[in-house]
Amino acid sequence: MPSYRPSTDDQRHLLFDVLQADRVLPALPAFAEVDGDLLSQVLEEAGKFVADVVAPLQAVGDAPGCKFDNGRVLTPPGFAAAYRAFWQAGWPALACATEDGGQGLPWVLEGVLYEMLSGANHGWTMAPGLLHGAYECLKHHGSEELKSTYLARIASGEWLATMCLTEPHAGSDLGLARTQAVPQADGSFRISGSKIFISGGEHDLTDNIVHLVLAREPGAPAGPKGLSLFLAPKLLQDGSRNTVHCDRIEEKMGLHGSPTCVMRFDNATGWRVGDAGRGLNAMFVMMNAARLHVALQGIGLLDAAWQKAEAYAQERTQMRAPGALRGEGAADPIIRHPAVRRILDTERAWIDGLRLLAYRTGLELDLAKHHPDASRRAAAQQWCSLVTPVLKSICTEQGFSGASRCLQVFGGHGYVKEWGIEQIVRDSRVTMIYEGTNEIQAIDLLARKVLPDGGQALAAVLASLETELDDAPTRERFAALREVTRALAAAQDPTLACEAADDYLRAVGLALLGWAWERITRAPAGSSPRWAQPAAAARLRILPEFEMRMAILRTQCGQPLAA
Amino acid sequence: MPSYRPSTDDQRHLLFDVLQADRVLPALPAFAEVDGDLLSQVLEEAGKFVADVVAPLQAVGDAPGCKFDNGRVLTPPGFAAAYRAFWQAGWPALACATEDGGQGLPWVLEGVLYEMLSGANHGWTMAPGLLHGAYECLKHHGSEELKSTYLARIASGEWLATMCLTEPHAGSDLGLARTQAVPQADGSFRISGSKIFISGGEHDLTDNIVHLVLAREPGAPAGPKGLSLFLAPKLLQDGSRNTVHCDRIEEKMGLHGSPTCVMRFDNATGWRVGDAGRGLNAMFVMMNAARLHVALQGIGLLDAAWQKAEAYAQERTQMRAPGALRGEGAADPIIRHPAVRRILDTERAWIDGLRLLAYRTGLELDLAKHHPDASRRAAAQQWCSLVTPVLKSICTEQGFSGASRCLQVFGGHGYVKEWGIEQIVRDSRVTMIYEGTNEIQAIDLLARKVLPDGGQALAAVLASLETELDDAPTRERFAALREVTRALAAAQDPTLACEAADDYLRAVGLALLGWAWERITRAPAGSSPRWAQPAAAARLRILPEFEMRMAILRTQCGQPLAA
Repeated sequence: MPSYRPSTDDQRHLLFDVLQADRVLPALPAFAEVDGDLLSQVLEEAGKFVADVVAPLQAVGDAPGCKFDNGRVLTPPGFAAAYRAFWQAGWPALACATEDGGQGLPWVLEGVLYEMLSGANHGWTMAPGLLHGAYECLKHHGSEELKSTYLARIASGEWLATMCLTEPHAGSDLGLARTQAVPQADGSFRISGSKIFISGGEHDLTDNIVHLVLAREPGAPAGPKGLSLFLAPKLLQDGSRNTVHCDRIEEKMGLHGSPTCVMRFDNATGWRVGDAGRGLNAMFVMMNAARLHVALQGIGLLDAAWQKAEAYAQERTQMRAPGALRGEGAADPIIRHPAVRRILDTERAWIDGLRLLAYRTGLELDLAKHHPDASRRAAAQQWCSLVTPVLKSICTEQGFSGASRCLQVFGGHGYVKEWGIEQIVRDSRVTMIYEGTNEIQAIDLLARKVLPDGGQALAAVLASLETELDDAPTRERFAALREVTRALAAAQDPTLACEAADDYLRAVGLALLGWAWERITRAPAGSSPRWAQPAAAARLRILPEFEMRMAILRTQCGQPLAA
Repeated sequence: MPSYRPSTDDQRHLLFDVLQADRVLPALPAFAEVDGDLLSQVLEEAGKFVADVVAPLQAVGDAPGCKFDNGRVLTPPGFAAAYRAFWQAGWPALACATEDGGQGLPWVLEGVLYEMLSGANHGWTMAPGLLHGAYECLKHHGSEELKSTYLARIASGEWLATMCLTEPHAGSDLGLARTQAVPQADGSFRISGSKIFISGGEHDLTDNIVHLVLAREPGAPAGPKGLSLFLAPKLLQDGSRNTVHCDRIEEKMGLHGSPTCVMRFDNATGWRVGDAGRGLNAMFVMMNAARLHVALQGIGLLDAAWQKAEAYAQERTQMRAPGALRGEGAADPIIRHPAVRRILDTERAWIDGLRLLAYRTGLELDLAKHHPDASRRAAAQQWCSLVTPVLKSICTEQGFSGASRCLQVFGGHGYVKEWGIEQIVRDSRVTMIYEGTNEIQAIDLLARKVLPDGGQALAAVLASLETELDDAPTRERFAALREVTRALAAAQDPTLACEAADDYLRAVGLALLGWAWERITRAPAGSSPRWAQPAAAARLRILPEFEMRMAILRTQCGQPLAA
């Protein structure tokens, strides 16, 4: 079975031919020199690195996976060397500012890189996956002193970083966190508490590990407003070991290549990042980018699963296909069988549509940061705020359920480890949970973002898409969305909002996807079988879910489910 | 986390209060003495055995799981003792005929027993899961000599049995199988070939293992019509070892408690079961029962996952619930949050509806075998033939995807092994594949069973359900099904039939489920929250999929997807 191949041709087509990133980006002063050739060349090099260095470590990431040995964590054979090659080649610094030692390239390019990395090896990719977020957090909220020691080393990837948020009793509800940070005379803090589910809390990839820790100062109010953010490194400046301990790593369903650590801060030395009581705020700087990263993981994993299924379906022969699809032999390649074609065409359609929306959102992240016009920046920010939770949920849902459909193509062979497809299903399952469960994304979208302004921001996003594409079914779906949004807003019922949130998020996602597939088929080469066939499968088999969700939402607005 | 508890109250309610099995069964001469008290008592005892003996071995079935040691297979600690207790208590013989040493009880009771066993411990249950099928096969097709040696020992469970069908290049397409069986002067055969995916091909649960092997005699025609069935035991009558070898066991996504063996028949001694060239036919005797077993595995696994999620949701507190659902403290039990309630109510609805349909089908299996009236037997046979593939597919799809929804209730805790929920997701995945993939079930339903008679048999089943329940939405769904069936039959297009098969199967399943939920709410206690609340969730959130499937089917009948 061939290992994952980065889909650079497809990625380039969507970025350049459809989204015209090679015109949008150089128009921004920050990226005046980032032309299509440069973008294309970086993509090409990224693809090579991923295919040559990272993809071959996929199986070893699952078994043996990471090992815990008396406080130390050993990553799988080859992981450390691959990581060293990664940071020495400058990949972690791709989208960090040049003044911090970064390469100053657009975020969307980093997004595409992480999509490839996740498809090739989700477990390995978890290690550098938090770097950019930690960098942004420190850059915007850290003191000059902290920045001088840590910022460039995080930007370059010389030191890896963690986010220590969750505690055993405080997961989705971080406001319940109890870890304490006691101020010292020298301005530092002593941090004590237990943190769980800490990806990369301990490992052998870098000398130092920089922990960003949510904790509460003495006398701070209960709830989220009492939380501050602290930086506590594994090694202190003098090279001595801080009292930050990894007590064990979790045994998980998958993602064995990434150590999920139980961390104990035992009077550990740290420094506050940003103002007291503003810990969640400091982290939220990076939330949209982090969620979009997770959405791109879903896409990368689905692409990896699709590639395996397609290759297997080309090789494997079983039974004769029906009608005109029938070949000459005793059995046809299973790709000729409609049941297999259906899975491949449908999942291909999901990948195409979700990828277009995710890349568009990546571009909007760059526009929100770098566009000279404040109103365009605000519109981009609005896009990211609304579309990111939708993508985080839909891409990860499809990453898992689509990978499971691809497993089905293998029949019984899909269930055994040999082919690597079941690993993708297991690995992908966590993406529906972390960075805010998909249910929380739905509540974030409807209750926190759409309803408070009566749906105006969403209406503005939809209107901007309508100006880009004149398509009757898209317009009808958008109109239906606006109508149900009005009904939900009019109800002013927080319970109904939570009950309707998941169906609402799916409906928004499908309406956006309908736009995306239409956009793809109207772009250059859009009528070629490569792009038109999956889009046709989407219209036939995926988009009817939109009407189903609307039917459920309409029923709920009329008669909310009894509590 | 409490382990699986058999849902005997719910099972009894559906069997007796809704389906009136305590009146239907004693009306059959074969079960004249099987009254409600006896059925109830057996269920109660079965529940106790499952809870006390089998459920506690669930975790150990996953890790360490089965071990391969130089041709031998060691099952997990405790498995052999539990199996010994199982056969010594007579459970394998529950539905075997009294003249073969069985207890002569109805098949539906065995079905309920296996649902519980699968929920408690899917891996362990695989071992006895094939017994009844092997028993029926041998009883109907074996020679007197074979029966005298093997039948009673299989019926009692003293010896376990396997089905050796799949070969590396012949999975869904058994007609490609190459294993050879060469006749000997004494009437025996020498069997040579490789078989894969053989559940329980080797183990330490019983002294002997009886293999039923599909193979081809010299000169037999190519394809399925050249296949005959053979019996080849691990130990020959003189106690010597036959040349049947286990070369390895597969490393799988889950189900580690069941050894999936690669078997090598190396000139092994065997005897033919039934006529030459009628091997598939001999196996098909047991196909409906075997598929219904798998459907019940899906239900049992979903019930087990639901129980875990519900218990966790009662205990775990996070965030305050919205509106009137809000409690007094800083955080509410997550079961008060609509996102969690929605998952629990919807999966509860799936369990209730699928269970009713599966038990009804179990009763029809008994009626097909034992009803004195030939036309009632034929109607029952028709029901089983049509409804079984629907249930195999829908129950296993929901077993997996519903277990995954239940995992979501745990947030990050669901992804770690500690809580046992991720094991259920991994274990359940295989049920969508074995005993005919769900895609093959769909083709079996539409192309082999519904279309050849223009939909008449299906129409008869639907009509019989309409006479039992006068419900307008059910009638409308049935009418829509009939209409789309006519359109598919009129098209006379085998490719279209294969393309439409999955959506068609889902539509039939949802129409039957709509009937089932209505039936449940109109039965005694049907208006109590226990039964009415899940049914309401089903109407709101599950049944709208029916219209979506119909929309897809109608589009396909108008304009089939290009090949």
